[in-house]
Amino acid sequence: MKISISEVLREAYRRGEAVIPDGAVATYIPELGRADKNALGISICTRDGLHYGIGTVDKRFTMQSISKVVTLIVAMERFGVGEVFRNVGMEPSGEAFNSLIELDLKSNRPYNPMVNSGALTVTSLLVGKVSFESLLETTRRFCNDPEICLDETVYRSELANMSRNKSIAYLLESKGIIQSSVEETLDLYTRMCSLSVTARSLSNCAVLLAMDGVDARGNELIDSRLCEIAKTIMLTCGMYDESGEFAVKVGIPSKAGVGGGVLSAADNRLGIGVYGPSLDDKGNCIAGKPVLAYLSRALKLHIFDPNDITAEIIP
Amino acid sequence: MKISISEVLREAYRRGEAVIPDGAVATYIPELGRADKNALGISICTRDGLHYGIGTVDKRFTMQSISKVVTLIVAMERFGVGEVFRNVGMEPSGEAFNSLIELDLKSNRPYNPMVNSGALTVTSLLVGKVSFESLLETTRRFCNDPEICLDETVYRSELANMSRNKSIAYLLESKGIIQSSVEETLDLYTRMCSLSVTARSLSNCAVLLAMDGVDARGNELIDSRLCEIAKTIMLTCGMYDESGEFAVKVGIPSKAGVGGGVLSAADNRLGIGVYGPSLDDKGNCIAGKPVLAYLSRALKLHIFDPNDITAEIIP
Amino acid sequence: MKISISEVLREAYRRGEAVIPDGAVATYIPELGRADKNALGISICTRDGLHYGIGTVDKRFTMQSISKVVTLIVAMERFGVGEVFRNVGMEPSGEAFNSLIELDLKSNRPYNPMVNSGALTVTSLLVGKVSFESLLETTRRFCNDPEICLDETVYRSELANMSRNKSIAYLLESKGIIQSSVEETLDLYTRMCSLSVTARSLSNCAVLLAMDGVDARGNELIDSRLCEIAKTIMLTCGMYDESGEFAVKVGIPSKAGVGGGVLSAADNRLGIGVYGPSLDDKGNCIAGKPVLAYLSRALKLHIFDPNDITAEIIP
Amino acid sequence: MKISISEVLREAYRRGEAVIPDGAVATYIPELGRADKNALGISICTRDGLHYGIGTVDKRFTMQSISKVVTLIVAMERFGVGEVFRNVGMEPSGEAFNSLIELDLKSNRPYNPMVNSGALTVTSLLVGKVSFESLLETTRRFCNDPEICLDETVYRSELANMSRNKSIAYLLESKGIIQSSVEETLDLYTRMCSLSVTARSLSNCAVLLAMDGVDARGNELIDSRLCEIAKTIMLTCGMYDESGEFAVKVGIPSKAGVGGGVLSAADNRLGIGVYGPSLDDKGNCIAGKPVLAYLSRALKLHIFDPNDITAEIIP
Repeated sequence: MKISISEVLREAYRRGEAVIPDGAVATYIPELGRADKNALGISICTRDGLHYGIGTVDKRFTMQSISKVVTLIVAMERFGVGEVFRNVGMEPSGEAFNSLIELDLKSNRPYNPMVNSGALTVTSLLVGKVSFESLLETTRRFCNDPEICLDETVYRSELANMSRNKSIAYLLESKGIIQSSVEETLDLYTRMCSLSVTARSLSNCAVLLAMDGVDARGNELIDSRLCEIAKTIMLTCGMYDESGEFAVKVGIPSKAGVGGGVLSAADNRLGIGVYGPSLDDKGNCIAGKPVLAYLSRALKLHIFDPNDITAEIIP
Repeated sequence: MKISISEVLREAYRRGEAVIPDGAVATYIPELGRADKNALGISICTRDGLHYGIGTVDKRFTMQSISKVVTLIVAMERFGVGEVFRNVGMEPSGEAFNSLIELDLKSNRPYNPMVNSGALTVTSLLVGKVSFESLLETTRRFCNDPEICLDETVYRSELANMSRNKSIAYLLESKGIIQSSVEETLDLYTRMCSLSVTARSLSNCAVLLAMDGVDARGNELIDSRLCEIAKTIMLTCGMYDESGEFAVKVGIPSKAGVGGGVLSAADNRLGIGVYGPSLDDKGNCIAGKPVLAYLSRALKLHIFDPNDITAEIIP
Repeated sequence: MKISISEVLREAYRRGEAVIPDGAVATYIPELGRADKNALGISICTRDGLHYGIGTVDKRFTMQSISKVVTLIVAMERFGVGEVFRNVGMEPSGEAFNSLIELDLKSNRPYNPMVNSGALTVTSLLVGKVSFESLLETTRRFCNDPEICLDETVYRSELANMSRNKSIAYLLESKGIIQSSVEETLDLYTRMCSLSVTARSLSNCAVLLAMDGVDARGNELIDSRLCEIAKTIMLTCGMYDESGEFAVKVGIPSKAGVGGGVLSAADNRLGIGVYGPSLDDKGNCIAGKPVLAYLSRALKLHIFDPNDITAEIIP
Repeated sequence: MKISISEVLREAYRRGEAVIPDGAVATYIPELGRADKNALGISICTRDGLHYGIGTVDKRFTMQSISKVVTLIVAMERFGVGEVFRNVGMEPSGEAFNSLIELDLKSNRPYNPMVNSGALTVTSLLVGKVSFESLLETTRRFCNDPEICLDETVYRSELANMSRNKSIAYLLESKGIIQSSVEETLDLYTRMCSLSVTARSLSNCAVLLAMDGVDARGNELIDSRLCEIAKTIMLTCGMYDESGEFAVKVGIPSKAGVGGGVLSAADNRLGIGVYGPSLDDKGNCIAGKPVLAYLSRALKLHIFDPNDITAEIIP
């Protein structure tokens, strides 16, 4: 049985489009507020490096929280898994993405590297050790997209509107969890959030994770063990406090950002990048869930779906 | 390359044995306190129905929280997925197994069916609709073990020592979440916890989940969609507040009980049952983590391990 | 300067009456729901034993949480201050009256004897040591009202609708804080809540506390040190999570109950009893605050008002 | 009956001295860490302006949190009671002085002006409206101590070590509660904390509050209504999460600071200033409680002690 990927994408697009009016673009900085709420793009990259796409797949937008995955991988590469997870946990938090509560109630570590407190902690490890330029270069390589660069306007605007992240970072400093400069940590974190990607870039990064760090030409860009860790944490913690439901209904390790992007790595099969700046009340791309739930069913991508039908995909 | 399962089991056993002294048997009721702390059994059942085992695989012990998986599946079968999850969530809680906090802080549903508040809620749906006898029969069928029966001593003792579960159940009643009789809910819940199984029984149930509900003779005992949901929730929530770390390090959907059992369903490959009544401070079998982490690596069972080597397993 | 108490009472009544429509009678049991929402009574008893009243001062209603004051005093008399406060704290909780959260987050004691968890703990000390009949007798003596008796209908109805208190009590048992029978503790607690008093009874009890336990005929009914403790705790914790604001705006140690009563002991001056079953969203008599704030200003009753003008009060 | 104040002070000193070894000086900045742990001074100022003292009553130390009382009074004078309490509550928090939790769980206001979040909010109202010089002048006037000035070393050191307060302030900004510049708010707050006073200064400020804002020469320095509010909030919230116990055992509105000072205003009677840099685990002067509990009993100063014996005090 052959599966027409174009038809599948058209149906996924229709399902995503239908819920866009129920969401809203992020408005905490004016630059995000100016995004086209109705934009929707879905890009798929197969393990053979073929791309299929529909809609706004080449529009640039900022990675935002999706950069947490890149930062985590770089930190594990550089300092080792043990050292990273001495500073941050691996547990879902049961809380919203920007809650401070968890930090005060739990032992002396942020819950995981996907919540802001955890990502700031991981970033602080890199300060003074890994330059922004080097992280930018790594992001371009993971995404196979040499045109990724810093969106200066978003970056400036974020820096001027980040009271909550400042609050989190100073709390982490007060507890001795962040030991680098708080200002430099916030700066590096914000730069990573402000990298501009496309749905297509994200699908490239996603398939790299799906294929355990080996790109279509056979180059090993990321250690397979680190990919396994990153995918597991994306699965249990990547979608904030709807991660559990997302794991049940979609079952693909994913990470969303308030810029509207979603990166989804269907293990051993393919990578998906979605762009849709209309967000749900958790801060995730609202079209992402129906799009990915449909793709998961149609292409049998759920972690617990035994059938691998990627060989049967045709254009 | 052939893999000797006997050798792998011996090494897993050694690793589990090594940590047993660091744990302690449950003592909240005298019956559990009398368990042999040093007991350890590991049973594997392949998708072809072959059994491999080491140690105490035929000793009977009570299912305790592992019964939450059976109860959840029966409730989904009987009332539908939508109805069950209108009453209970799908999110990891970030809290210990018996915390009341989450219930007060979150919207009007227990976080998930694997914490006590969630399991009591799911059980309350069954009260008056599905008899204990029928649930017992289902458990026997899932475990392919007709000798499973109620451990009357444990059951009586649990009933007399369950202040915390009473507290949870009455809180759920006060919020309108439990609408059946609290006493009958607690009774049915305790009966299910008091069913006596073996490591071998658990491996049978585990492989059934792993094979999407189809047993070795080809009978479909559970709907595949329900298996998928159960496995996902076991993966994200099954090991209480170490579920996240367990998912990273083991990567097999699992559920433990304070009786010392662990059920682990390696998707599409095999089922594992472990018995070891020495518990860690989360209330999970302390030998479980090293045993399962080792088996996961040696037999390539992690959800994000692409290699299926089950065909290469030899005795 | 002479102050006409009748005029002051009329103005207080007017102010209380004005807010009655903004509240609602308790409805968690039908018996309370049947109360006349518009009823309002204010009774004052001076240190000389003179009574002044307006409105519904002789209507019987149940004490509810006001009984916590009586229970606390009896427990301190019987077991000593040290023993009581080994089991329960003295701190305001910052939480609503029936929250469980505080218990889980704080050290192993309920915050104070005025929240339900604290009152249940104090009651549990009395179980098997002090009979209900003896407590009833004490209440009659404190209130100088021999007609106080158990409202059987309310008592039965409360017993059948107390999931939340059951939840709290079993949690306390699970933590070893309640060591008596939970059922007997709940029964005794509910009996005390179901004693029927009048605004006039409450003003008698209030003036007894105000005069350090000595009644108008010079009999010492309560040790003055225990009165001091009770008044202090009423001041800091008596009005649930509006105790702080009440202390600022009224400044009289007070305790309210969901039956509509308020007992206010203006130290060294006079006692006030209010009846008004229309409650605010904290579960306190909604007319209570304007009535008592006005009386506090007009009669100079605030703890930090230096003027004692009780000698100038005329009918 | 005449009471020898010298004897009473000697006994109070002995009781304070006895517990000093159980505490520790604050060490979060080196300047506080250098304080003489064994220092103890008690200063009493009567309503007639007479001073009695023992020990280190003229040693300068920084006000720290005691300045919250001055700041609150100035804010109420300047903006009115209503405006101040639109931004901050009046409720005890049940939490430690520097907890962030309460802010996240409650409605959009810090609990009260005595916890750091509340004091920062009150300070933010003053930024740009009331200069530090004017606040310094007010503090000198309240304390009748023209030599109070900024301790530059402490001020610089605090500024360099205030991650937790930064965290709180940015959180308040993120919620729109602080609308002035966070940096200026933190600067003004820190300046007020760094004013150097003596036990004698504090006793002067305390008696001013005790006498409803009128000094010994009959000048009204503070509106009596504002004194009443300040004293009530000190009583219910002034000693952090031991305020309730302190109210029971001491019963005098008090405010402590980590510099070692305590200000206690015995309503309508006298003012007390204590200096003792050895702190208990709540961050309050450890000698303060036994000293003030003894003075309260010996001089009958508890809010609910009816006897005014100040006329009988002799040197």
